[in-house]
Amino acid sequence: MCQLLGMNCNVPTDIVFSFTGFATRGGRTGDHADGWGIAFFEGAGVRHFVDYEAAVASPVAELIKRYPIKSRNVIAHIRKATQGRIALENCHPFQRELWGRYWVFAHNGDLKGFAPELNGAFRPVGSTDSELAFCYLLQEMRRRFGDVPPPLAALTPALRELCADIARHGTFNMMLSDGSALFAHCSTQLHYIVRQHPFKTAKLADEDMKVDFSTVTTPQDRVAVIVTAPLTDDETWTAFEAGELKVFVDGSPLLGA
Amino acid sequence: MCQLLGMNCNVPTDIVFSFTGFATRGGRTGDHADGWGIAFFEGAGVRHFVDYEAAVASPVAELIKRYPIKSRNVIAHIRKATQGRIALENCHPFQRELWGRYWVFAHNGDLKGFAPELNGAFRPVGSTDSELAFCYLLQEMRRRFGDVPPPLAALTPALRELCADIARHGTFNMMLSDGSALFAHCSTQLHYIVRQHPFKTAKLADEDMKVDFSTVTTPQDRVAVIVTAPLTDDETWTAFEAGELKVFVDGSPLLGA
Repeated sequence: MCQLLGMNCNVPTDIVFSFTGFATRGGRTGDHADGWGIAFFEGAGVRHFVDYEAAVASPVAELIKRYPIKSRNVIAHIRKATQGRIALENCHPFQRELWGRYWVFAHNGDLKGFAPELNGAFRPVGSTDSELAFCYLLQEMRRRFGDVPPPLAALTPALRELCADIARHGTFNMMLSDGSALFAHCSTQLHYIVRQHPFKTAKLADEDMKVDFSTVTTPQDRVAVIVTAPLTDDETWTAFEAGELKVFVDGSPLLGA
Repeated sequence: MCQLLGMNCNVPTDIVFSFTGFATRGGRTGDHADGWGIAFFEGAGVRHFVDYEAAVASPVAELIKRYPIKSRNVIAHIRKATQGRIALENCHPFQRELWGRYWVFAHNGDLKGFAPELNGAFRPVGSTDSELAFCYLLQEMRRRFGDVPPPLAALTPALRELCADIARHGTFNMMLSDGSALFAHCSTQLHYIVRQHPFKTAKLADEDMKVDFSTVTTPQDRVAVIVTAPLTDDETWTAFEAGELKVFVDGSPLLGA
């Protein structure tokens, strides 16, 4: 199974600590050696890194562990190929533009018999069910709302409905972001934590690495981390329910969204 | 003025030598310190790196100089901002998907009074005239050819016409690739060289660095390098004519295309 990692914050924050633990699952503590990727929003722009080498062996992953890119929305993925060969075009996250914004998407799971009709506006480049689901999501978002991006209060129920539709075909744990909000849908497994004042120390479950967040934050900072399986073994993570879609804005899940 | 660098080859080739000379112009020998970017096709996939730091100071540029990514089509850009603030979303190359392929685009020049009508299929995320021109090109390609990608023999004259149209608004030196061909249009300044058997030694004009290509190639290899100003001072580069569009496939310019 693939693994997903997302981060949504109220101030630009680096993901070095979480990515270090997460990347370890790409070929060392986990069996996910078929590629990986990460996308960082910076304002309206995106830094997008993908590789079909195991994350533990990748020089690009090494760069990201050392170079603290600060972002308010990050989506990362480690791939265990189920559909689609091991190739760069099949590495998540995928990226497209809609409504003059970049959208970034990653998926964990396996869809069977999922063959939506595409109108050509968004077409997969690779051969994964995941990229197909992403193209279908964007197509339907544009079909429902036209050329004007809807408010979050209208987009969220539409995405909830679309995710439920897609999830009828199999496991659809996914993360989607346009740089302002991070949407996370759980079919089977997804956890999150919100770190905020007073910040504490946390220890990675997959590596012998600790960080004292109080030394690298201000009291106003708030950071939500969403991940397939909890990254730290001394913090309390909240499990998503099956079928749940959560929207994270400024480092917290929106209530009632 | 910005600078452009493109490479088109018949076998995957690394661009370390050319990029090293080129990146030096981003803040050291040249006055292009407002960001840079590079995109490498690998099969149908793309590795895309952008940064708004000067290329000479960027840790990502450092990675690319050390890590020989092999590609048959590469487009790189160093930015001197003319329109659009210094921000990640304004760094070239830009990337979009059309016809189930990624397209990568970079531009050098300045367009005045260029305000084409966009139908919403491709919209700029940033605020440059360049990204607007790219969105317009893709929109018009799709409008002319519909959902079926045309053969090169049909696409080339269409692009030539579209580039000439855009160039009426100002300087439009540009490179565009879908991973199979590299299109280069010259308004004012663009040079190319084809390196093939027998390979020789070449010396960078901007750095004290030499390479003996015969030691890193096979006799079948063929590599076209296209750049704003020649990168080496001991090879013969061919200047494009003003208004010329050339198509490079498998390391050579297509004749009569």
